[in-house]
Amino acid sequence: MMRFAVIGLNHGHIFAMADGLVKTGKAECVAYFAKEPELQAQMRKVFPNVPLARSEKEIIEDPSIQLICSAAINNERSALACATMRHGKDFFVDKPAMTTLAQLDDIERAQKETGRSWFVWYGERLMDPSSRRAIEMIEAGAIGRIVNFIGLGPHKLMRPIRPAWMFVPELYGGLINDIAIHQIEMFTHLGGGRPTVTSSRVGNFGHPDVPTFGDFGDATLVGPNGATAYVRVDWFTPESMPTFGDIRNIIIGTKGMIELRKTVDLAVDNDRFTGNQLILATTEKPPHRISCEDVKVTLYDDLIRDVENKTNLCIPHEKSFAACRATLEAQTNAVWLNK
Amino acid sequence: MMRFAVIGLNHGHIFAMADGLVKTGKAECVAYFAKEPELQAQMRKVFPNVPLARSEKEIIEDPSIQLICSAAINNERSALACATMRHGKDFFVDKPAMTTLAQLDDIERAQKETGRSWFVWYGERLMDPSSRRAIEMIEAGAIGRIVNFIGLGPHKLMRPIRPAWMFVPELYGGLINDIAIHQIEMFTHLGGGRPTVTSSRVGNFGHPDVPTFGDFGDATLVGPNGATAYVRVDWFTPESMPTFGDIRNIIIGTKGMIELRKTVDLAVDNDRFTGNQLILATTEKPPHRISCEDVKVTLYDDLIRDVENKTNLCIPHEKSFAACRATLEAQTNAVWLNK
Repeated sequence: MMRFAVIGLNHGHIFAMADGLVKTGKAECVAYFAKEPELQAQMRKVFPNVPLARSEKEIIEDPSIQLICSAAINNERSALACATMRHGKDFFVDKPAMTTLAQLDDIERAQKETGRSWFVWYGERLMDPSSRRAIEMIEAGAIGRIVNFIGLGPHKLMRPIRPAWMFVPELYGGLINDIAIHQIEMFTHLGGGRPTVTSSRVGNFGHPDVPTFGDFGDATLVGPNGATAYVRVDWFTPESMPTFGDIRNIIIGTKGMIELRKTVDLAVDNDRFTGNQLILATTEKPPHRISCEDVKVTLYDDLIRDVENKTNLCIPHEKSFAACRATLEAQTNAVWLNK
Repeated sequence: MMRFAVIGLNHGHIFAMADGLVKTGKAECVAYFAKEPELQAQMRKVFPNVPLARSEKEIIEDPSIQLICSAAINNERSALACATMRHGKDFFVDKPAMTTLAQLDDIERAQKETGRSWFVWYGERLMDPSSRRAIEMIEAGAIGRIVNFIGLGPHKLMRPIRPAWMFVPELYGGLINDIAIHQIEMFTHLGGGRPTVTSSRVGNFGHPDVPTFGDFGDATLVGPNGATAYVRVDWFTPESMPTFGDIRNIIIGTKGMIELRKTVDLAVDNDRFTGNQLILATTEKPPHRISCEDVKVTLYDDLIRDVENKTNLCIPHEKSFAACRATLEAQTNAVWLNK
């Protein structure tokens, strides 16, 4: 059994991450720490048998713990990553894994110096069968050379349930960094490595009471293999949408195109809620759906195997660093609209 | 009966334009001119009763002709527009209406000095019920303030049937200018007037034997009302697609979103060929389809009325000039990829 602990419950993704590890039957959550009483209460409800540690330090210094999982406040995640790796443990973190380029530099340095593993939960690719199938098909040449990737990441804001730190730019780190990391990380796989940002923009269109909060962002990029990309993220998904957001990829190649409707298939069959709709058209075959039902989501098993074997296969560091760097550049250099 | 003539048959759109006018029952095609014998043969087949004039000049100088229609080679359209207006006639031209900013300046000057009408066939908006309905709904506030417009204009190249001039940049004028005019013209309506280009790119991904031919282009823009846009065009639609291209708009506002599937509804009900699929989701109502069946395409009637009444209602000059200017700027300043 792999022994892991949790530090920081500031985003709900942490429960999916910890639960995913436990459900493999190969990992045990042995402790957690969070300073907020209301988040402690949530943890007690989901994991009644996992004890609250006295401090982060107690967990970080416990030599029996192999992995620390975290969804701390965004700008606290990198320091925790470095401390964890420097104490001989691996680290599994919700995205975004950091909020500044300096934090990314720190993480890269700590990872290289310690040789420990640093895993980021890129849910929209790793947990999404249609994304995995699409990458596999594209790598096998299904649509020829990639010409353009569009990644759309609209989200519901659900403002009443969002914590105050989300509206403090230094703590939150911006919506391109928070959301578009999904799209840019996907493009890192399709574009052949670290993308170059051509242009990026952020704006506040609908939340004048929090003027420094970006509720819209987009960017254009180019990959080392010449493929182009456009990514767009926003906080305007209507509450009525039967999903947190209509996550979409449209990918064109020299010999065909693929569309992914990852979370919902709008206005089709009373909405195919579950997403995983992969639509393919090629020079040989008209548009049709490709089943993704047999694609297994193996993230948690793969991650535990990496921890146990001291390998780095499931979320390779170099690709992960590349995706984070391009995303931080898009966020940092974004032109602010409506100012 | 409005009397019109045709000069230049270099793109097949001309037959739809002339036919549209004739079918109203309010217009008569009285002459045509084209120098190419094979295009003359095509015209004789479609309009057997329309006589071939001896020259362009004969048509331009005929005082009984009120309107000249043209789909000449792209870079010849502006000189013809100016000559037509300076001879006291109106001009109805396929898009793109010009290939350079200098040509647009000439047209604007001729239009303003003569007071004649200059109509551009923006087929993807004017001939498309779903576009007309979407604009009408958005203007009535259906999705709140517009945040972002995505316009996708993929096309089949069908290279064997394309004329040689399409691969000569000076004659053709580039694919952003040729195709993205549709998307940018649509955005001129949604973005509150002449858009500013944030970034634009052109590349050749799949046609190394014609290296100066752009087979992919995209651009980001901002409208005077603050709305953002991304437009993407390409020549990579697979031959197997049951349409010339999957023309798509995705529009998000502060209170909802609209998706238009103008030409095809991919992998749904054996492809809803006819397009005109308008999908709406708002803060009040989950994603659903809005019928566009009752939207009448009135372009040709409206245009004839404008000619007869010397009005300028159906394709207002200022919006049209604004759309062409932004499109030419996107084309002219595009970064060339893969060079």
